[in-house]
Amino acid sequence: MKLKNDLLLRAANGEVTERPPVWLMRQAGRILPQYRALRGSLSGFKELVETPHLAAEVTIQPVDELDVDAAIIFSDILVIPEAMGLTYEMVEKKGPWFPNTIQTVSDIDRLISGEKAAKDLEYVFEALRITKKELAGRVPLIGFSGTPWTLLAYMVEGSGSKTFSKAKKFLYTQPEAAHRLLDMLSDTIIAYLNMKVEAGADLIQLFDSWGGILSPTQYQEFSLKYIRKICEGIQGAPVTVFAKNAWFALPDLKDFPCNVVGLDWNTPPQYARNILGEKRVVQGNADPCFLYSNTKDIENATRQLIHDFAGHHIVNLGHGVYPDTPLDGVKAFVNTVKSFS
Amino acid sequence: MKLKNDLLLRAANGEVTERPPVWLMRQAGRILPQYRALRGSLSGFKELVETPHLAAEVTIQPVDELDVDAAIIFSDILVIPEAMGLTYEMVEKKGPWFPNTIQTVSDIDRLISGEKAAKDLEYVFEALRITKKELAGRVPLIGFSGTPWTLLAYMVEGSGSKTFSKAKKFLYTQPEAAHRLLDMLSDTIIAYLNMKVEAGADLIQLFDSWGGILSPTQYQEFSLKYIRKICEGIQGAPVTVFAKNAWFALPDLKDFPCNVVGLDWNTPPQYARNILGEKRVVQGNADPCFLYSNTKDIENATRQLIHDFAGHHIVNLGHGVYPDTPLDGVKAFVNTVKSFS
Repeated sequence: MKLKNDLLLRAANGEVTERPPVWLMRQAGRILPQYRALRGSLSGFKELVETPHLAAEVTIQPVDELDVDAAIIFSDILVIPEAMGLTYEMVEKKGPWFPNTIQTVSDIDRLISGEKAAKDLEYVFEALRITKKELAGRVPLIGFSGTPWTLLAYMVEGSGSKTFSKAKKFLYTQPEAAHRLLDMLSDTIIAYLNMKVEAGADLIQLFDSWGGILSPTQYQEFSLKYIRKICEGIQGAPVTVFAKNAWFALPDLKDFPCNVVGLDWNTPPQYARNILGEKRVVQGNADPCFLYSNTKDIENATRQLIHDFAGHHIVNLGHGVYPDTPLDGVKAFVNTVKSFS
Repeated sequence: MKLKNDLLLRAANGEVTERPPVWLMRQAGRILPQYRALRGSLSGFKELVETPHLAAEVTIQPVDELDVDAAIIFSDILVIPEAMGLTYEMVEKKGPWFPNTIQTVSDIDRLISGEKAAKDLEYVFEALRITKKELAGRVPLIGFSGTPWTLLAYMVEGSGSKTFSKAKKFLYTQPEAAHRLLDMLSDTIIAYLNMKVEAGADLIQLFDSWGGILSPTQYQEFSLKYIRKICEGIQGAPVTVFAKNAWFALPDLKDFPCNVVGLDWNTPPQYARNILGEKRVVQGNADPCFLYSNTKDIENATRQLIHDFAGHHIVNLGHGVYPDTPLDGVKAFVNTVKSFS
């Protein structure tokens, strides 16, 4: 089905567009009253992730409510470890938790990987198909995955962490085991993302949420190498790489085999342009907290952001929108981009 | 009293030294068995901070055990908010917590500041005097403070946080109140640090632990401006500025009125040298997790670090040492620097 609004895809493919496209990371979530209402009626977060017609419903909510230029499938990066054999729980107000973690090579040997693991995620593909049908071409649909390093970090650490020191210790003390797991994760992610594209994803975003806690040397060896492999393995959709806080790797992303470079809010636009060049397509990078400002300040800062990147730019925040962000602030942000000319 | 080992001070003052000095942020703490033994016998963290002869004892422990080139007074950055009227608690395994927080201008108006507040911290100055006496010139003694922004972040947020979104919201929605509080914090910190120098501190380090969560624009306005004011207000001791994760501000630190630029472990040495020049004195920046490696890897990585910075370098980690770091790893790190030639 032909897209009625293909602004995101044209921008991602490097075309000059009439205005920048806009969407928000975590737009399908607690900022929306309709999400909170649905979520409140369910047993938990995972019920929402694993029930295709509900995941589709919340995926479409921000398109209806905010009129953004893209939908992003409602899911979680941790479905991949689970499909590989390491189940997770989502603990209210605490975040993800793994009853079992990876500590040794034999823990890794017990995992399944590649297509065999990816096929287990039929509920995600079904959610994409339903969403695609219900969107009826209104906007493109984004599929996503965590990067191998970011998923390894959770699988070893067992939960979120300020330092991920257990996961980093694993890289320092068992590098061969780490590479083995990262290879298995890469194979699984490639199969998974290609199945997502087949199910209707128009663009893929890779989240390296914990890239920024690695040293530059470790980042090259344990993260970037595998992101490259995945970018080269995805067929049929443009790819965005968002390596949060991994500012030191920005020079590597200049000629990286991806279409769009996601930027966090710490990255000054002029710095990014100096490193990446004028024509590299970037995504981001407003501070999520600027949406707490008054409408006038939001409008001004949004226009400034568009001005600073000077084209080849997909407007977004530099992080997922925070759950307590006022809906009016989000709308002021989106509407300023949409009325830009 | 003349120092027997003044390597740190000579390096901080820009002299070429026979080898780089070495110490570790958080060296007085849980990595040492003698610290854990003492701490276990006390009612809590604050008893240790507030009892001068005990604070002095744990300050000297790493000099005895690790033979590092500096002592850093055992204390906490949150003594400043407390002296200003906002008491904190240290909750075991959770971190700092403020029963009352700053939300409005009238909350700020109730605080005291400047010399009047700083004088309340006599227990810190007494700890410095005892330490200085007991060290008997073995190594220099470092005094420290949090920066105004980092302290404001805790005072508004009320505790540690992954996002400090409440504190950042305060900057976006009440900028005038924020500047008023930052001014009061700056005045207090300047008075406090000058009293620390008077009590025996040979060098001052400013910790901007939460600098890196601000956008580059906010960082200039709400943090860097006040750090500059403090640097200009400290008399009689060299100053190190450690702006963790605020990589985007590194160009500002090139000609900043401080003696030493602290670097976190994300900053590639060559990048820092390109920005700061060959002769700017830097401190850092090994990944704290590299100390989980085996001795040989630690020795090699430490020598590489010294080689990469190529002089004008105070060896340290790029963050406080993690509590579960093996003592053998720490010793391998320190000894490699000490035997470097």
